[in-house]
Amino acid sequence: MMNDHIRFDADQDALLLLDQRYLPLREEWFACRNTDDVIYALQTMVVRGAPAIGVTAAFGCYLASREVRGKTDWRIALKELLELIRTARPTAVNLRWAVERMEALWRANEVVELDHLASLWLDEAKRMQLEDEAINRAMGRHGAELLSDGDRVMTHCNAGALATAGFGTAVGVIYAAVEQGKRISVVANETRPFLQGARLTAYELHRSGVEVTVACDNATGLLMKKGLVDKVVVGADRIAANGDVANKIGTYSVALLAKAHGVPFYVAAPMSTFDLDCPDGAHIPIEERPAREVTHPTGESQITPLGVQVYNFAFDVTPAELVAGIVTEKGVLRPPYTEAIQRMFGK
Amino acid sequence: MMNDHIRFDADQDALLLLDQRYLPLREEWFACRNTDDVIYALQTMVVRGAPAIGVTAAFGCYLASREVRGKTDWRIALKELLELIRTARPTAVNLRWAVERMEALWRANEVVELDHLASLWLDEAKRMQLEDEAINRAMGRHGAELLSDGDRVMTHCNAGALATAGFGTAVGVIYAAVEQGKRISVVANETRPFLQGARLTAYELHRSGVEVTVACDNATGLLMKKGLVDKVVVGADRIAANGDVANKIGTYSVALLAKAHGVPFYVAAPMSTFDLDCPDGAHIPIEERPAREVTHPTGESQITPLGVQVYNFAFDVTPAELVAGIVTEKGVLRPPYTEAIQRMFGK
Repeated sequence: MMNDHIRFDADQDALLLLDQRYLPLREEWFACRNTDDVIYALQTMVVRGAPAIGVTAAFGCYLASREVRGKTDWRIALKELLELIRTARPTAVNLRWAVERMEALWRANEVVELDHLASLWLDEAKRMQLEDEAINRAMGRHGAELLSDGDRVMTHCNAGALATAGFGTAVGVIYAAVEQGKRISVVANETRPFLQGARLTAYELHRSGVEVTVACDNATGLLMKKGLVDKVVVGADRIAANGDVANKIGTYSVALLAKAHGVPFYVAAPMSTFDLDCPDGAHIPIEERPAREVTHPTGESQITPLGVQVYNFAFDVTPAELVAGIVTEKGVLRPPYTEAIQRMFGK
Repeated sequence: MMNDHIRFDADQDALLLLDQRYLPLREEWFACRNTDDVIYALQTMVVRGAPAIGVTAAFGCYLASREVRGKTDWRIALKELLELIRTARPTAVNLRWAVERMEALWRANEVVELDHLASLWLDEAKRMQLEDEAINRAMGRHGAELLSDGDRVMTHCNAGALATAGFGTAVGVIYAAVEQGKRISVVANETRPFLQGARLTAYELHRSGVEVTVACDNATGLLMKKGLVDKVVVGADRIAANGDVANKIGTYSVALLAKAHGVPFYVAAPMSTFDLDCPDGAHIPIEERPAREVTHPTGESQITPLGVQVYNFAFDVTPAELVAGIVTEKGVLRPPYTEAIQRMFGK
């Protein structure tokens, strides 16, 4: 399972990202040397997936600290850069979570020299990267119990190794089940407009030797009716205090179709994805992205007539009542989620 | 509204089809001069849509009759060609319906000369073409009563002028409502893999001055939850005797999502789409099409990793209980459909 697609290169003092815009057929690296690079990478989806966004943002804070060297008012300049990183994308809470963790470290240390802060932050970003993979492996162990030998598991978007520092959340659950010796095959929804399922989930599962079949998003109803889907496991970009789940556009439709066919629908997400300040899904901001993602599916030909408008909401919210369980590094939460989430956070 | 995209050219003795593979950005014509051309056009979706397939097949029978000229056993050769046309695609019943209408005309006339038969068939094909547009206009008048001023109507695939000889079935209902002075806006689902919604429905609605917004198929749940869809109207490739509807892949998912959100789901289809020999949807064969449609969305770059398999079921079946009404040229059928359909056919 991939865990080297987000790499800090000490020689170049740069963050190297396997550019997810060009997978699966081209493996190119995108080097981030400053805040602008990081924000570009986040916004254009060189890197995507809530946990991967969090780790990238953490390294971004370090790069911001290098960028303000030599400024007398470096504290003010640095705070401005952190704000840009925090707000680069609106839906995934991990972005905010990562920046706030860096800020807390700053507050907790008597930092006089900028170099000292930079060094603390680089170490912290590396620690977060390692932690993320460990968390995903713990999540995988808990989640694998939900899957049975022979299961055909549908997943949406890419909640795999590429969406994290390594191993993955929803796909990590599948990897863990496979490591336990269960025969699992996967239906990867292609996930328009950015095609993360067709491009990324299929890529990493195929590379890892897991049987995967790509389906267009609109085939979900038929595939479930034909009995080709035993379970659904997806990731999350933000989970509200009541268990409502924001995730890639289409997740809500899959959850409703799963309910209509009696297929259990699970979410796998680390604790960093929960937003206890957010009471429910209605309070989660939904990013709207450029029309071009819809109108140019592969970046080449345009498929729509010139002048026709498009919808491109990037996420939707699945209400908690459609979710059979939420897999975290602490175990599998079951309804009622408000109480289960509070217990997990020790409240 | 377009009605010149299927054209018989007497000078060339050829059927000219506006090639729907290249719309909306290129308008190219595909000339069918023999049965092979017609079957290629049907199978590669130069022309698609159940009524348009029927009309094309009718002209195809005429071209077949020209092709067997000079053969002493022309009757046998012609029957073989008709069989190839009849089975070019499995799901739409209009293909069979059109060929059977030509065969009935053959049986009903004392044909001694092949040229006589050819002339009968050419007239009949032209008549079917004119009839189809008239039927669609009648359907539009009935169906328009279902739409209210201000409605936002979702449609899936292309059941428009391009799917017929002219005016369209589901989109014809929208055109008719607009002609009545109602303000209607349309959400066109892009309809992967062949993108008929993004390419064709958006093209003809935009050209006709109807407000249209293209959405990825997986946005249906979100758009309905946000209250952006008041009604759904789709076409059909075959309707069983109990009212089960085979239509483009994704229709069934839209119907289930519509039910979950209390959005009325209508089907518009001419009587030629009903198959009274087919008791229910389980008996309708579902075409599986080449993987390349899924793996190469615009015919250029491949989106999936090499070696990964795909599902490409081209149709699904929506059970009658999800359908609020079926618009035909005779009026709007309401449940229970078995009785309503028998009454319409005078049984």
